[in-house]
Amino acid sequence: MRILVVDVGGNNVKFRFSDEPEMSKFKSGNSMSPDDMIAQLMAKIAGERFDCVTVGIPAPVRDNRVIKEPFNLGPGWVDFDFEAAFEQPVKVVNDALMQALGSYESGTMLFLGLGTGLGGALVFGGTVAPLEVAHMPYKDGKSFEDFVGKRGLKALGREKWEAAVHDVVDVLRQGLVADSVVLGGGNAKRIEILPPHTTIGDNANAFAGGFRLWDDSS
Amino acid sequence: MRILVVDVGGNNVKFRFSDEPEMSKFKSGNSMSPDDMIAQLMAKIAGERFDCVTVGIPAPVRDNRVIKEPFNLGPGWVDFDFEAAFEQPVKVVNDALMQALGSYESGTMLFLGLGTGLGGALVFGGTVAPLEVAHMPYKDGKSFEDFVGKRGLKALGREKWEAAVHDVVDVLRQGLVADSVVLGGGNAKRIEILPPHTTIGDNANAFAGGFRLWDDSS
Repeated sequence: MRILVVDVGGNNVKFRFSDEPEMSKFKSGNSMSPDDMIAQLMAKIAGERFDCVTVGIPAPVRDNRVIKEPFNLGPGWVDFDFEAAFEQPVKVVNDALMQALGSYESGTMLFLGLGTGLGGALVFGGTVAPLEVAHMPYKDGKSFEDFVGKRGLKALGREKWEAAVHDVVDVLRQGLVADSVVLGGGNAKRIEILPPHTTIGDNANAFAGGFRLWDDSS
Repeated sequence: MRILVVDVGGNNVKFRFSDEPEMSKFKSGNSMSPDDMIAQLMAKIAGERFDCVTVGIPAPVRDNRVIKEPFNLGPGWVDFDFEAAFEQPVKVVNDALMQALGSYESGTMLFLGLGTGLGGALVFGGTVAPLEVAHMPYKDGKSFEDFVGKRGLKALGREKWEAAVHDVVDVLRQGLVADSVVLGGGNAKRIEILPPHTTIGDNANAFAGGFRLWDDSS
């Protein structure tokens, strides 16, 4: 089965086929619609055969559909029908989750995406369960996201934000009985000292995660 | 593979083999130790062959070991070596979780055990992930368990406790993106109006859950 993985970012769209070691890319940007993306991508892969596609999107995804417009891209992503565009089965996932899945090794892994909001997923037994922990109660009547999302970073300043990230990771890791934590999302790289059992998601793992999503089908 | 499931309760010990439709039982009680239980059980199943065992215990379990003495039984359950007693592979699980697993149908199911504390598990893709949500923050500096555990029931009274259960179920169902919720544990039956998407665990499902735990191994 030949899989195409497309990792849509705010600066570039990267793509790779499962039987080729090299990825290719083209520019994206804050006006790019999914139609633009598909048109450019299709021009680059004209004549290529593929059996299925994973698309990683920098936005929340549920049931294989983008449910909120990506922050760094143009409009039209919500509910966009990628299967119609690719004419093949498509799995649509949050981009950071795709990274996390690519870095999964064993046990229960908690993925937290530190971006504008707070994304999350729990990976175990090779399965990914999405989480919506962002708005769960944390303290002072505020949510986890209020502290560790973009607003929290702005309000607290980097150092106190990092302390909040440490505590939130600890609370969620214990609550969800996770063996390890992977931090992704745009703000993960701002953390200077990582919490215990925690690593930063690596962009390079995104393609591995995209391929892995089709493991059961191959 | 012939599986023996033993459902240890405060009043009775029930057991059944996977190839027999009928369950059998004998009295337990608040002085029963695991040695007593094993001795009585072994007398009843003398001559029976079995390949593996699931034991459901009304107490918290981690890594196949009871980690806290059951409330309604005698002492000695913590760290008791069931594999040595049965001379076969044994899976030890919380009894309410065993029920929940037996009632799992599809999607992501959140199990919450309303007892002295607040047990939990997330079932998806046929896999069970334990949860320790009890001590996660909820409100007023208190945890979920402070509101919906035994202390909460006492402090709030039944009606306000039920309202808290509704809210906690809602917060956790959304946070963990669960399609359905099963409530187990001794206090589940005190709820008069169930929250949306929620059912009460059924004792009758306990054996199905115990068998299901060996699904991958058969």
